[in-house]
Amino acid sequence: MAPKALDYESLNENVKKVQYAVRGELYLRASELQKEGKKIIFTNVGNPHALGQKPLTFPRQVVALCQAPFLLDDPNVGLLFPADAIARAKHYLSLTTGGLGAYSDSRGLPGVRKEVAEFIGRRDGYPSDPELIFLTDGASKGVMQILNCVIRGEGDGVLVPVPQYPLYSATISLLGGSLVPYYLEETANWGLDVNDLRQSVVQARSRGITVILGTLILPKFIHSPLQDLHIVFHLKNITNSTLLWWALLVAELLTNLSCNVYCYQTEFLTLYYLQVRAMVIINPGNPTGQCLSVANLREILHFCYQENLVLLGDEVYQQNIYQDERPFISSRKVLMDMGLPFSKEIQLVSFHTVSKGYFGECGQRGGYFEMTNIPPKTVDEIYKIASISLSPNVPAQIFMGLMVNPLKPGDISYEQFVRERYIYFDYKGIIESLRRRAMMMTDGFNSCRNVVCNFTEGAMYSFPQIRLPPKAIEAAKQAGKVPDVFYCLKLLEATGISTVPGSGFGQKEGVFHLRTTILPAEEDMPEIMSSFKKFNDEFMEQYEDHWGYSRM
Amino acid sequence: MAPKALDYESLNENVKKVQYAVRGELYLRASELQKEGKKIIFTNVGNPHALGQKPLTFPRQVVALCQAPFLLDDPNVGLLFPADAIARAKHYLSLTTGGLGAYSDSRGLPGVRKEVAEFIGRRDGYPSDPELIFLTDGASKGVMQILNCVIRGEGDGVLVPVPQYPLYSATISLLGGSLVPYYLEETANWGLDVNDLRQSVVQARSRGITVILGTLILPKFIHSPLQDLHIVFHLKNITNSTLLWWALLVAELLTNLSCNVYCYQTEFLTLYYLQVRAMVIINPGNPTGQCLSVANLREILHFCYQENLVLLGDEVYQQNIYQDERPFISSRKVLMDMGLPFSKEIQLVSFHTVSKGYFGECGQRGGYFEMTNIPPKTVDEIYKIASISLSPNVPAQIFMGLMVNPLKPGDISYEQFVRERYIYFDYKGIIESLRRRAMMMTDGFNSCRNVVCNFTEGAMYSFPQIRLPPKAIEAAKQAGKVPDVFYCLKLLEATGISTVPGSGFGQKEGVFHLRTTILPAEEDMPEIMSSFKKFNDEFMEQYEDHWGYSRM
Repeated sequence: MAPKALDYESLNENVKKVQYAVRGELYLRASELQKEGKKIIFTNVGNPHALGQKPLTFPRQVVALCQAPFLLDDPNVGLLFPADAIARAKHYLSLTTGGLGAYSDSRGLPGVRKEVAEFIGRRDGYPSDPELIFLTDGASKGVMQILNCVIRGEGDGVLVPVPQYPLYSATISLLGGSLVPYYLEETANWGLDVNDLRQSVVQARSRGITVILGTLILPKFIHSPLQDLHIVFHLKNITNSTLLWWALLVAELLTNLSCNVYCYQTEFLTLYYLQVRAMVIINPGNPTGQCLSVANLREILHFCYQENLVLLGDEVYQQNIYQDERPFISSRKVLMDMGLPFSKEIQLVSFHTVSKGYFGECGQRGGYFEMTNIPPKTVDEIYKIASISLSPNVPAQIFMGLMVNPLKPGDISYEQFVRERYIYFDYKGIIESLRRRAMMMTDGFNSCRNVVCNFTEGAMYSFPQIRLPPKAIEAAKQAGKVPDVFYCLKLLEATGISTVPGSGFGQKEGVFHLRTTILPAEEDMPEIMSSFKKFNDEFMEQYEDHWGYSRM
Repeated sequence: MAPKALDYESLNENVKKVQYAVRGELYLRASELQKEGKKIIFTNVGNPHALGQKPLTFPRQVVALCQAPFLLDDPNVGLLFPADAIARAKHYLSLTTGGLGAYSDSRGLPGVRKEVAEFIGRRDGYPSDPELIFLTDGASKGVMQILNCVIRGEGDGVLVPVPQYPLYSATISLLGGSLVPYYLEETANWGLDVNDLRQSVVQARSRGITVILGTLILPKFIHSPLQDLHIVFHLKNITNSTLLWWALLVAELLTNLSCNVYCYQTEFLTLYYLQVRAMVIINPGNPTGQCLSVANLREILHFCYQENLVLLGDEVYQQNIYQDERPFISSRKVLMDMGLPFSKEIQLVSFHTVSKGYFGECGQRGGYFEMTNIPPKTVDEIYKIASISLSPNVPAQIFMGLMVNPLKPGDISYEQFVRERYIYFDYKGIIESLRRRAMMMTDGFNSCRNVVCNFTEGAMYSFPQIRLPPKAIEAAKQAGKVPDVFYCLKLLEATGISTVPGSGFGQKEGVFHLRTTILPAEEDMPEIMSSFKKFNDEFMEQYEDHWGYSRM
């Protein structure tokens, strides 16, 4: 009998192609060990509340009241809830039709989108239009919606930083597009060199053409190098049909195939030249933790202008900054500062979330995206697609409102809110604590044999390079594992520390990393780092060649 | 300059192809009128809380406490929350790691999936495996995930009932698949005739081939009928390459095109024969409101077995039943009752939600799907795809737990819960009230000129047929509108009643409907129906030909 629609063999190939390391082999093994009773320190996902970050009281009070509006009529409500939480709950309920149990508009509640627009206006110094802001079930869902509009097929390329957060590689595979990597420079603290960007695009294009010829003429028919053909295809606004005509001529020139034979091969023919359509930046970086400078952002925007790329600005870590030299600046502000023609020409979509920053409310699944220079007809299309799943969850929309419209001095709960959120010199604040944890981790890693690590300027990850000795790489091969997976698995078994191998994010050939969050409780940090050091140094001892192997 | 990636011209064509009438022209016009101050009765979306259905107190108390866990330590908590709500909140918090602010497993909280499995086991009399149950952000998201695995391209067909809920047509377009309609029989109270199903599949296949030839040889080159060619292609398990060879021969036979010219056309060549891979049933029906009988479900499952189709059972309205002859029975129970080989062979995915039924908690976005006879490797793939967006929102997972694991006699809040939920003879109960509203609407529509309407057996919609006089159809053409859109717009302008034209759900050629929910408050129903009747009868008066036009 033929395979059934949901048998593995007959699934959508794009689904099978997807790779998602953050919850991959390491995560599954860690879950097994946990079931077996081993104590596991999960540092694989940026999930602050799972690692002890406490929710802020005020937002939770407000949402609890919105969930239980009947409490607002209860004479005792004042015994459990402060007056400003009650007032704010009434405010948000008044923005809904039917409370949290009713679908909102598919773009989210207009009143909350207005609060988001005001937040963006204050942040950037340029007004923002609520009609160009869509609320989503977390930032990931927004990224997927936008990429779904951008990617039409294998011929559409998206520039993604490497190392990258696998949401991007996974979504691009799922949508059948092409990922075009650009490498962040580890030795320059994961900085971005625009010349490398240009290189990536050029390489991608020629790769695209090679794909065409590779499929147009089966490899066995072709021996001559393809370089000279590139010129033919490096013309702008080339259409598939003209491209096909050239391909045919070239095919006949190169190999004296009869048309019949050629016709037979048309089944394998995928007609495109790779067109890079969009660029992703993650600022602050995940997993690399760097913060982009204004100068760098300007270069990137210039590049997008020249190459006619839409820029996707993943700015979900904008509140997670652990140094003062490079505070967060939004790509939108930099774009507006650049003035005409850029500020009216460059298409930008930027993403934010309630999952990170002071809130860390991952489980609520709240996010938004804001569109700049996107034509109204396209906005309508995105609205239509959002309508298919009716509306983002409404409670998280309230959290978004609370995040972008925080309490003000004088409000009853302000003191407590600020104390919980972040007092610059109060060493109980979440951010100050994360800053110290980032330092402990960076120093800890750098004190280990064959480990070098950049400081985590932002986001919530540390991404140390592990310089594996040749013998370790050999042992990994023997075990049939990628070297960094081999190392991370041994780390997990020995210490219970669950990390993600660098290969899950992409890294340069022959270079190995791991990603860990900086989220474990501050008091546990020394123990975690010393058990890491113990494991690592013994590992290196075991695999290093004592007859002259030295650090690279 | 070339169009930018997010200019309308260069968007993903599948995105543009999507149609979604539930929030289409009528909805947008209604929103405009509302802004202008006109009173609008929104009956376009099944959004009970927006139309006055009250949330059940107990589930809201539990989720409010989960959002504000610090209340559990407050000595005054007992003044606002009953002991069983407190206990249940502690129970659900104990199923999380880090409360509602932490991502759950991408499949949902194991403890809640266990409660869902127990519910299904009680409902069907057959045990269910939590590992085969995934929680989702509403049922729609689950449907999209499964169709994403099933649909590989234009050549993959999905059988969808017509009239249908546009989630299916929209998702199939978005994923680039082919919708294969099967018609529900209005005169048989929207019943499903399996012989029509067979016809639909046969037609779809030949249509698939016609598409191939239509694109293989441009119409201008071909004059002879295609019938005789169908034989060539009506072979099973045909592969694309053989198909191509035949296509080539046929092409040369039919039109003496030189290979070169033929090659030129290969650009337009889409090579497939349409393979029907899945079938959707909506039970109770949306928009048609019918409930499928056991006999009918058995026929459908037999058909899926013969045709090797995976069955998607949309059962989100299983609590919304307004008659006693045909209570809801799940397709899974019917499948299990059929025994071997069916119970081990037929692939079934069924969907449920917290958005409908007694809860009606649309805005929370909670749902699940359960997989039957889906191989583990496929389950792993679906898990991987779910991981990309990390986890469904956690508060809605708690609502799902509360829905499938309701209070029991003896619990402190039981009395109130039952009273609110559904007391068979209590005329305040949601279901009894909906039952009466369904009757009022059906009778109301049937009392109108040229309107005939089946009784709403289940779900929450009424789908009357509007028999438009030729003159009205003519007037619509003049106005450049689809006839039922023309009628619904006039209804909206005249009465403020916002409905969805039948063309948004699909209907037989020359037959017209509209969909309205039965959700407006019971006390408003008489007024709504009389203003509808007034409009309709005047409309018919205006457009009917008094020189002998009579009802069809």
